Amino acid sequence: MADILHRVGVERSSPERAYEALTTVGGLSGWWTEKTSGDTGVGGVIEFRFGPGGFDMKVVELDAGRLVRWEVMDGPPEWIGTGVRWDLRQDGDYTIVLFKHEGWREPVEFMHHCSTKWATFLMSLKQLLETGEGAPEPRDVRIGDWH
Amino acid sequence: MADILHRVGVERSSPERAYEALTTVGGLSGWWTEKTSGDTGVGGVIEFRFGPGGFDMKVVELDAGRLVRWEVMDGPPEWIGTGVRWDLRQDGDYTIVLFKHEGWREPVEFMHHCSTKWATFLMSLKQLLETGEGAPEPRDVRIGDWH
Repeated sequence: MADILHRVGVERSSPERAYEALTTVGGLSGWWTEKTSGDTGVGGVIEFRFGPGGFDMKVVELDAGRLVRWEVMDGPPEWIGTGVRWDLRQDGDYTIVLFKHEGWREPVEFMHHCSTKWATFLMSLKQLLETGEGAPEPRDVRIGDWH
Repeated sequence: MADILHRVGVERSSPERAYEALTTVGGLSGWWTEKTSGDTGVGGVIEFRFGPGGFDMKVVELDAGRLVRWEVMDGPPEWIGTGVRWDLRQDGDYTIVLFKHEGWREPVEFMHHCSTKWATFLMSLKQLLETGEGAPEPRDVRIGDWH
């Protein structure tokens, strides 16, 4: 098993605002993909769509202002059965966002790509919270031939 | 053991140019840190300095246009004994840069930070190769309270 890990510190925000950006369709579509829909409550499934495909995430755990956990229900074969975990907290002037995409069966090349791409989306989340404007798909940062 | 993985695709470049950016003081100081010095040949030690500290990397393997491997000799305690591996190849119009920072003893929070920070430096490398201008320290992208 292999995990993708990331961490950003967001200025002029709060764990509550970060939590909102992770648990509402409006928030999620402001930093990940504009094509976000579905039920963001526990047990609900959120559909994230991108040019070449997308992901269906089941919301498996929510702790307001602290924790969000998703399980991948549909998407690329490498993603099925993996989970995404967000831990939030305030450290002084910074809202700390700890990210883990866990349970990859193999560290395949696609996992390398997803790791870098997640980093750019975490920077998009940080930017959304700090400035009100993120860079969700289709305005996302391109990192290579795999988008 | 845990690894940080990344992948970028660089346009209008070549594995040879990417290799040069990873194996010369001029290249490395154009995307990672301006304060780069030392011996970039096999067995040599390259010193990378940043505001809060730095890393000494021993060059343990070089294969022109294909592979660069470093071993961390000095730096933060979590980095000692870890290794960094770069694999390069051309895929159509893109130079593919596969990155691995391998052998972390524990997936500590600092590893989360380093993973995101490496992603921004890979984007800096991509930018250097595509435009001639990267974003090395001290002009690097800030990702949070840990720089």
